[in-house]
Amino acid sequence: MATPSTLYWEDIDIGQELETGLLDIDAPGIRGFAEKFDPQPYHLDRDAAEASLFGGLCASGWHVSAMMMKLVSEELIKENIALIGSKKVPWLEWYRPVFEGDTISAHVTIADKSAADGEADCGLIGFDIEVHNQKGKKVMALSAYLMIQKKEVGHV
Amino acid sequence: MATPSTLYWEDIDIGQELETGLLDIDAPGIRGFAEKFDPQPYHLDRDAAEASLFGGLCASGWHVSAMMMKLVSEELIKENIALIGSKKVPWLEWYRPVFEGDTISAHVTIADKSAADGEADCGLIGFDIEVHNQKGKKVMALSAYLMIQKKEVGHV
Repeated sequence: MATPSTLYWEDIDIGQELETGLLDIDAPGIRGFAEKFDPQPYHLDRDAAEASLFGGLCASGWHVSAMMMKLVSEELIKENIALIGSKKVPWLEWYRPVFEGDTISAHVTIADKSAADGEADCGLIGFDIEVHNQKGKKVMALSAYLMIQKKEVGHV
Repeated sequence: MATPSTLYWEDIDIGQELETGLLDIDAPGIRGFAEKFDPQPYHLDRDAAEASLFGGLCASGWHVSAMMMKLVSEELIKENIALIGSKKVPWLEWYRPVFEGDTISAHVTIADKSAADGEADCGLIGFDIEVHNQKGKKVMALSAYLMIQKKEVGHV
């Protein structure tokens, strides 16, 4: 069973906040993700990117989402939260490009707790997440509902 | 300027549909993404995954999102659509795990066309996207708004 320090659904309170670590964005990372998942010239080629509306090599929006998950999951692991997985994203928006040389971090606020349909052993936690660059500018924000294990099965 | 075959915002009609190609999911792909972005045991280790609620090695939800973008962007490139980038996701939900050995594909319906705030040279296209596995079961669905270049600047 649980180690004493594991945080379950019951242990998480609306209004709690956490600040993630930092993640540096570099050209090989941008290109590596784009080659696999989003092969647009402005994610792959610096010259094409500089000639584009973006004006520089920038990360796929889905790469920024994945990096957000990296930053957030590092905190969930550090806090020993009993994460089962992601369930839904009621909204997500990309506000600004993330360029090579940028550094991003995320601010998380616990916004909601609810039951998970048909699941007795986990509940949902709604996270409001804002991702910022090194200038403090918001590059992405979203609401994400994660499935978190319950301490007591069937307890709400 | 444009090659004759480029499809701009004006050329895309609500109700149009397209079916993407297929993508096979394998363990190295699942682990590679998870190591970088979502290092949970059920994405990294087959034994831990089999002992988990999922019952098998499965992809991060954000990996499934990235693979969806891969499938959709292959079609956008094939159709020569003047994509600028992703803008927002009004909703997204993961319904079932995607396991190693699964094959996924996506069905896309053009659901909306609108102006992009503050942008004269592009407009938004709303895509409704469903991702299915080889059994025809829906694993993820979302609404995604992409920025598409306009043929005539300022034209709505």
